[in-house]
Amino acid sequence: MRPDPLLNVTKNLNTVSATARLFTPDTPLVLASGAELAPVDVAYETYGELNPRGSNAIFVCHALTGDAHAAGLRPGDRKPGWWDNLIGPGKAVDTNRWFVVCANILGGCRGTTGPSSVNPATGEPYGLDFPLLAMSDFVTVHRRLGQHLGVDHWAVLLGGSLGGMQVLQWTLSYPQDCDNAIIIAASSRLTAQNIAFSAVGRQAIMRDSAFRGGRFLSEGTMPAKGLSVARMLAHITYLSEDAFSAKFGRTAQSGKLDPGFGIDFAVESYLEHQGEAFLERFDALSYLYLTRVMDYFDPFASDDALARLTADPVKFLLVSFDSDWRFDTGHSRRIVQHLEGAGLPTSFREIHSQWGHDSFLLDLPDYHAILRAFLDRASEEGNR
Amino acid sequence: MRPDPLLNVTKNLNTVSATARLFTPDTPLVLASGAELAPVDVAYETYGELNPRGSNAIFVCHALTGDAHAAGLRPGDRKPGWWDNLIGPGKAVDTNRWFVVCANILGGCRGTTGPSSVNPATGEPYGLDFPLLAMSDFVTVHRRLGQHLGVDHWAVLLGGSLGGMQVLQWTLSYPQDCDNAIIIAASSRLTAQNIAFSAVGRQAIMRDSAFRGGRFLSEGTMPAKGLSVARMLAHITYLSEDAFSAKFGRTAQSGKLDPGFGIDFAVESYLEHQGEAFLERFDALSYLYLTRVMDYFDPFASDDALARLTADPVKFLLVSFDSDWRFDTGHSRRIVQHLEGAGLPTSFREIHSQWGHDSFLLDLPDYHAILRAFLDRASEEGNR
Repeated sequence: MRPDPLLNVTKNLNTVSATARLFTPDTPLVLASGAELAPVDVAYETYGELNPRGSNAIFVCHALTGDAHAAGLRPGDRKPGWWDNLIGPGKAVDTNRWFVVCANILGGCRGTTGPSSVNPATGEPYGLDFPLLAMSDFVTVHRRLGQHLGVDHWAVLLGGSLGGMQVLQWTLSYPQDCDNAIIIAASSRLTAQNIAFSAVGRQAIMRDSAFRGGRFLSEGTMPAKGLSVARMLAHITYLSEDAFSAKFGRTAQSGKLDPGFGIDFAVESYLEHQGEAFLERFDALSYLYLTRVMDYFDPFASDDALARLTADPVKFLLVSFDSDWRFDTGHSRRIVQHLEGAGLPTSFREIHSQWGHDSFLLDLPDYHAILRAFLDRASEEGNR
Repeated sequence: MRPDPLLNVTKNLNTVSATARLFTPDTPLVLASGAELAPVDVAYETYGELNPRGSNAIFVCHALTGDAHAAGLRPGDRKPGWWDNLIGPGKAVDTNRWFVVCANILGGCRGTTGPSSVNPATGEPYGLDFPLLAMSDFVTVHRRLGQHLGVDHWAVLLGGSLGGMQVLQWTLSYPQDCDNAIIIAASSRLTAQNIAFSAVGRQAIMRDSAFRGGRFLSEGTMPAKGLSVARMLAHITYLSEDAFSAKFGRTAQSGKLDPGFGIDFAVESYLEHQGEAFLERFDALSYLYLTRVMDYFDPFASDDALARLTADPVKFLLVSFDSDWRFDTGHSRRIVQHLEGAGLPTSFREIHSQWGHDSFLLDLPDYHAILRAFLDRASEEGNR
């Protein structure tokens, strides 16, 4: 219950960190494309405890490069989970009250089956033989995880960026699964510019001579240069221009500019570090697969997209950040217009923040207060 | 005098296309860094004729990937020069009236000495042994070209983007060289985000295994993958998000989306084409050297930056475009504030255009009308 005074990491989350085999060769996962996949393992964590009525469960969907480790410190960790400022005892997502589940996404590389997992048909990593994924495939896996955990109904689905896109897909496909949905800094339809940024990142990876047509693991190489360039590029879009100026300006990394082609400006050092650190924890193939799901996601393209949801309404909270230019407020507003157009109960708040898209990961008082208020209301209604 | 009905290419420009050796081993170019460079050849073109008084000369400074071929069709050309919509008989820069000079920039790869030229000390291409350049080095070379052509005074210096930055440097260093200066979509100081984009592009080049520490020409390789990724990335910043949406939206290149990792969205095809076409005409080392000059450019950092110019005033026209996010209007406004703060005659117009940074290359009526009016006034004053 006591926050760590240095890290503001909350302990006593009753954390469970585990991997479940959810789909086996006998019951393979059938993907939206029709392809079958087995086995499918899913790495997940839980925080807090499910109450006897099963009415206090929250599923957290992570963003592109997140993982199941959303909160707390595991043994040996130097850094807490990626959403530790939000999730824990007494925090906005209060684990004294809520039972929180977060799972690594299908196609990822942090414990859940993905393109660098071993293909049982060949005994080698799948590579580009891994089937293409759709947003609904993530939902299928997460629903199965819920069944595995004895949760077939969620008080709240919660996610930011790609996580918010998963929440949107889940509510459109299976609105009966939840009462409330929180969609933060997300999009229902990438723009040409959004796709362009992802496309260039993917090209950096696929043109790396070590990529070897996706067989780099089998061939003992690693497209580290391409993957780090993709990550550096993506990082430019995660921060606002003002945030870059505020954090780095034109200052030199070493105190004084020393012209040349090495790392000289502080902003170059930051990007270099982001690119290198990413190699430790992420896989080039997962990067391709997951970004491509985002490109193709366009759930409101079909006329009856909202039919199930209007028959079984969910209460929505949409949040955007005014300096986010990866998925600017227009993206959230478009989702709101679709939902409100269908008469669904929808709250929408644009939060002022100078930090750009990554704001959804930050401890911003206005932002967390809004989530807390929405969750308080959800808890009260859930306890009725 | 008659525009080509299809291309709107104007003929009868009295074009001269030539290369001059401006610095020889006996009189090497002394760079801002103190390094010496020789020989230095400069490729240039001229349009129109210098009048007997020498009062009708305009120097055009090109942008990052431009060249000396600003206007007209040379034998065998399929496309006219990069600023042909602006320069020619009867056009805003009317070659019936003006004598126009454009030269490939030092460090470039289109006929002027650059890092892929042969280093006379080794008989091999310079590679990264080519000295670092500064904005003032471009000016030094262009002044010398003027002397070679018998022009020691310019009625107008004109440039967009990096070209505008050269014009600014020229007026600050040698205000006596000109009466008027037109600076379009330029910057006096890149932001951290601006630098970040260039840094990632350079990393894509330098991390390409074919780059070979800059010795790729000697070793018979070519960092084509890195250079094309750098170009694709840069192109994202040259168009506004609205322009990308208007040009491409989410349409498929082949008419119908066909999910996979190949070229599927039209915007991907556009970027691929831009990346590939660039390889035909540009050099990876020039890309490094020229972008780095922009990163370090910060002429108002010194307290006495404006001393010479206030003693010998030049009339300025600054132009920005409201959808330009590579160098947004704030960049132009900052230059204006410095100039106006020093009491210099400065006109400033922000043009409405949806096309982003590349607007400076387009035939936009408001934009060209403003240039025409400024040049009319300059011509009248020059003829007094």
